[in-house]
Amino acid sequence: MSAPGEFELIASLAGRLDPADGLGIGDDAAAWMVRPGSLLVATTDMLVEGVHFRLDWTSPRDLGWKALAVNLSDLAAMGATPGRALVSVALLPGQAPLVEEMYDGLSELSRLTGTHVVGGDTVRTSGPLVVNVALLGEAEPGRLLRRDGAVPGDLLAVTGFVGASAAGLALLLEADPERLARAEAASLLAAHHRPNPRLAAGRTLAGMGLRCAIDISDGVASECWHLARSSGVEISLDTDRLPLSPDAVSLFGREKARHFAVSGGEDYELLFAVPEARLAEVEAALSEHGGVTVVGRVVEPRPGGNVRVFEAGRVVGPGQPGYVAF
Amino acid sequence: MSAPGEFELIASLAGRLDPADGLGIGDDAAAWMVRPGSLLVATTDMLVEGVHFRLDWTSPRDLGWKALAVNLSDLAAMGATPGRALVSVALLPGQAPLVEEMYDGLSELSRLTGTHVVGGDTVRTSGPLVVNVALLGEAEPGRLLRRDGAVPGDLLAVTGFVGASAAGLALLLEADPERLARAEAASLLAAHHRPNPRLAAGRTLAGMGLRCAIDISDGVASECWHLARSSGVEISLDTDRLPLSPDAVSLFGREKARHFAVSGGEDYELLFAVPEARLAEVEAALSEHGGVTVVGRVVEPRPGGNVRVFEAGRVVGPGQPGYVAF
Repeated sequence: MSAPGEFELIASLAGRLDPADGLGIGDDAAAWMVRPGSLLVATTDMLVEGVHFRLDWTSPRDLGWKALAVNLSDLAAMGATPGRALVSVALLPGQAPLVEEMYDGLSELSRLTGTHVVGGDTVRTSGPLVVNVALLGEAEPGRLLRRDGAVPGDLLAVTGFVGASAAGLALLLEADPERLARAEAASLLAAHHRPNPRLAAGRTLAGMGLRCAIDISDGVASECWHLARSSGVEISLDTDRLPLSPDAVSLFGREKARHFAVSGGEDYELLFAVPEARLAEVEAALSEHGGVTVVGRVVEPRPGGNVRVFEAGRVVGPGQPGYVAF
Repeated sequence: MSAPGEFELIASLAGRLDPADGLGIGDDAAAWMVRPGSLLVATTDMLVEGVHFRLDWTSPRDLGWKALAVNLSDLAAMGATPGRALVSVALLPGQAPLVEEMYDGLSELSRLTGTHVVGGDTVRTSGPLVVNVALLGEAEPGRLLRRDGAVPGDLLAVTGFVGASAAGLALLLEADPERLARAEAASLLAAHHRPNPRLAAGRTLAGMGLRCAIDISDGVASECWHLARSSGVEISLDTDRLPLSPDAVSLFGREKARHFAVSGGEDYELLFAVPEARLAEVEAALSEHGGVTVVGRVVEPRPGGNVRVFEAGRVVGPGQPGYVAF
């Protein structure tokens, strides 16, 4: 969940550190060998009240679910299997019952995914509630999905639907009682509050020897840019092919639903590269894990990366995420 | 760095989770086997502006140092060797330069201790600056210092001096220009801003087969309580034997320096249990790692634990940390 200017700041911070062996800053998670045949994979995400969630919109249980889910999604994007988590919370006096409920939601998702919370920290704050999860998992060496693995000729595909979470957020923002009462609202709010990280899909792709994936936390266009830059390629993204959430289309219309998918983010689906010859095989393997929709392709090598976003066969923009200073 | 009521909240939160194999919530760090002969050890600490530090008192570099140091100290207390860290920061718009400097301080200590920052998260906030470090390290199975390893007959000892950090904090709080100008102030402020985690001492104790240690983050009396409860023993603490910081005694007098040591905290020295027969051997081994001072002993088994605090041969209190609701 990036903030404007985050990418520049991360680059500056990374430059201040000595590099470690293994995969470090710049992918969805870090990874290094802990024994022959096993990589440890580690990621962390911090959620801040008023920035990533609002307590009048999100129940404490959903917040706990989501705090773990966004980290699980990073591991899914690496093809890793989650293991243990450390959870830190900064809370105001009087928020202990809220944090207990939050833990119930976190515990619910940890049970479903085989994750164990083994430690943490609870501290006071005078400001917004802050939840940080650090998550560790495991992957097989040579079976890791990375951002830099896309090569010209690959197709780009996504799992599931995109834009549903942003549509759910839009429902909360506009607070139109009529639209909120429609049957379609429920799935969109659920997509926003309780995302389902694509762990099985990620493991399946990694197990099949695919090389490149990222989770969709910032919108499809932004994630295409991450892959393009890391892989040094130009990517074309065909927004007409995006698997829009039918409920979002029904409630907001196709154009708005497309906008949610391209720029909205927080879908926690996977965006991945697949050689054209293996598409049918991947479609079959993921049929029970959200399905697969081809949304673009890797065009050619391009140092520094490039993304061309198409709509109705016409280039509508480079789709580059805003580089505003923090 | 506990807040009032933290212990009760942690117990409530831990009860909402499924237990994992290995050592989990309730020690300085979690630990589990990742390969034969090697435990992975993991800990996390969150620092909040206005609660754990003030930006008008602490330089960004010192803050970065300390954010890593408090986690390294947890690993030291387990006898573990640090490896990799994940760093999350919540910052206000405009604080990027401050966070960059903070990383310089963090990087300085990471180089000195062989730690590598391999990932993290930077997010916006509307409130106080928050820094969370999750730290992973390694230890040998059967060579882990734990809170529950104290047995009747053991002596209790500490490394280094205690009370220096709290004396440094007192200097900042009272802001008396005359006292701040004294030569002794420098070491106390340094103890507060740049604690040196006792990694070598912890590894040495673990390597010698000792069983029980904790780092002094909340004051010696509070840490005695943690050991007493976890080990199910009664501990007597002789405050006359505490190795008070000479600079704290010189600036504040013996009584105040003693109070800083007993209740002040943030010393990041180790408090550990040692069988009497092995004391000389431990003293020799730690002579270059801060030295050893016996400050009490483990009296007898006591389910639920107990601590008796002595001063001039007289019991002055149970020394139990306050159990105020969050």
